[in-house]
Amino acid sequence: MSAPVEPGPLERAQSVVALGGGHGLSATLRALRRLHADLVLDELTAVVTVADNGGSSGRLRGEFGVLPPGDLRMALAALCQDDDWGDTWAGVLQHRFAGDGEMNGHVVGNLLIVALWEQLGDHVRALDLVGDLLGAVGRVLPMALTPLDIRAEVRGIDAADPDAVTVVRGQVEVATTDGVIASVALEPADPTPCPEAIAAIADADWVVLGPGSWFTSVIPHLLVPAMRDALITTAASVILVLNLEQQDGETPGFSPGDHLAVLSEHAPDLKIHTVVADRAGVGNDLEELAHLVSAFGAQLVVDDVAMADGSARHDPERLAAVFERVMTAGVR
Amino acid sequence: MSAPVEPGPLERAQSVVALGGGHGLSATLRALRRLHADLVLDELTAVVTVADNGGSSGRLRGEFGVLPPGDLRMALAALCQDDDWGDTWAGVLQHRFAGDGEMNGHVVGNLLIVALWEQLGDHVRALDLVGDLLGAVGRVLPMALTPLDIRAEVRGIDAADPDAVTVVRGQVEVATTDGVIASVALEPADPTPCPEAIAAIADADWVVLGPGSWFTSVIPHLLVPAMRDALITTAASVILVLNLEQQDGETPGFSPGDHLAVLSEHAPDLKIHTVVADRAGVGNDLEELAHLVSAFGAQLVVDDVAMADGSARHDPERLAAVFERVMTAGVR
Repeated sequence: MSAPVEPGPLERAQSVVALGGGHGLSATLRALRRLHADLVLDELTAVVTVADNGGSSGRLRGEFGVLPPGDLRMALAALCQDDDWGDTWAGVLQHRFAGDGEMNGHVVGNLLIVALWEQLGDHVRALDLVGDLLGAVGRVLPMALTPLDIRAEVRGIDAADPDAVTVVRGQVEVATTDGVIASVALEPADPTPCPEAIAAIADADWVVLGPGSWFTSVIPHLLVPAMRDALITTAASVILVLNLEQQDGETPGFSPGDHLAVLSEHAPDLKIHTVVADRAGVGNDLEELAHLVSAFGAQLVVDDVAMADGSARHDPERLAAVFERVMTAGVR
Repeated sequence: MSAPVEPGPLERAQSVVALGGGHGLSATLRALRRLHADLVLDELTAVVTVADNGGSSGRLRGEFGVLPPGDLRMALAALCQDDDWGDTWAGVLQHRFAGDGEMNGHVVGNLLIVALWEQLGDHVRALDLVGDLLGAVGRVLPMALTPLDIRAEVRGIDAADPDAVTVVRGQVEVATTDGVIASVALEPADPTPCPEAIAAIADADWVVLGPGSWFTSVIPHLLVPAMRDALITTAASVILVLNLEQQDGETPGFSPGDHLAVLSEHAPDLKIHTVVADRAGVGNDLEELAHLVSAFGAQLVVDDVAMADGSARHDPERLAAVFERVMTAGVR
């Protein structure tokens, strides 16, 4: 005779919001998609930076004054349904034209998203439609409804005065600066928030922040006033996923602890529940990081979360295992 | 007591292939879509010219060496499923970028089709996928798998010698010539046919040809050798839909009978079952047309098939009524 089945933590439907941009967010979303398939979570929302000013997105932004669509498109592709239909359409959305003509470098999904915005006049409905096309597991929303620029205060650019602060504008320019970034801000400073994103954060059980370009894809989420307020007041627990390594341009010479510290400087009131770091990425900085995480009142999870092939990317499967362990252990 | 229900002609599932290009084919397809909804036909295939060298299609053809996608995209949009989903995606595929940048004039569906061709390396599978996206009623196929050019022999261009024949190349150039087109041919003369299009013609109950730009969208279907052979040997009955009026550039001064005669000159062995002409469009040329149609062994249907608002377009609803009458009267 078997005992009655008690619903375990795995059976509790959880809602998760992932914040970021670019390839880092894609890795998180691919991980969370697995948890959705495994029924660990049932509601998944990606909130994506809209400050890109380079490549296909930058050209479309310049030509039409729209939100840069590239990171939104990448997030949608990462959430496509796991079958031939989803894979095929995700591949098409990600298709980048080659050749040497006017289309060179443009990405089809970017063009499709801009066309939907023009046709429907509704950012969120347009993104939902692309999600429907892909059979996406979850929803993709912009961080703001206003195209943004990153403005950074950078030291070390002026060789004559290494302590002088120079202002650098634009995501591409900030991400590739030769100096050391001291802080970032948004232009405009108080962009129109996306109400659906704010509501998703308010209602979430978990918020995942990072990995990604630290100053231009991760920290910007803390700089939209309504987003920051939502992140501070939500009952959701925040999981911060650190990058695997320092990033040329954005965080050269930054230890894992430096990443955490600089993020906290931009949002001192943000409560962090768990910090996830890669074992090899932390290396000898473990003690410093553990001390700092503890000072923030958070728990530290150190595990192998990088791709096994040595590439500097998070492995969605390994990341999923960590998320599942953290989320099914319940909120402290 | 009621008599047992006999299956009437309406209950016989029929297959129809529509040949053409541009707005003319769209009108035919919108008409045939109604017959599909009314269960008059159950299989619908559009076969589309691929000789366009202007606009967004011409730019993409020049940049990537692909089939011009524009007329294929228009045909797909015309067959979209009749609900919010179909209408929305058809609208997006038809969306043309404005502005004054590099995207100006490009149409989103064209870009999507080219991307699918590049991704899948299969013209037909790519078009089927766009059809699936739209929930299209029927299938859209290219006339050939080789990008084509129209070459026309034109009289009246040389003012000094009005009978001199000038060769004009390119769909745009032919469609806008100041001279009188004597004949058209394809370059290359024997393009790779689309096997699925040939098979559809062979298996069809009805083939609808026209309306449309006579020399650059309608007659070209008779110039692909494998298509012409299929049209001559099929058991399907051919319905020829005449244009509402002469067209500047292509058919200035052409009577309805001239349209029929010049088409027949390009494919003398083609048997025509029914010629559909607009009542107002025929006007005083009725007797000449009736005589000619009768000489071809075809039946003439003259009815009001133009838009009631006076625009020079076929009305899909009126055209559908004519098609239904012809098709449900059975094959002679």
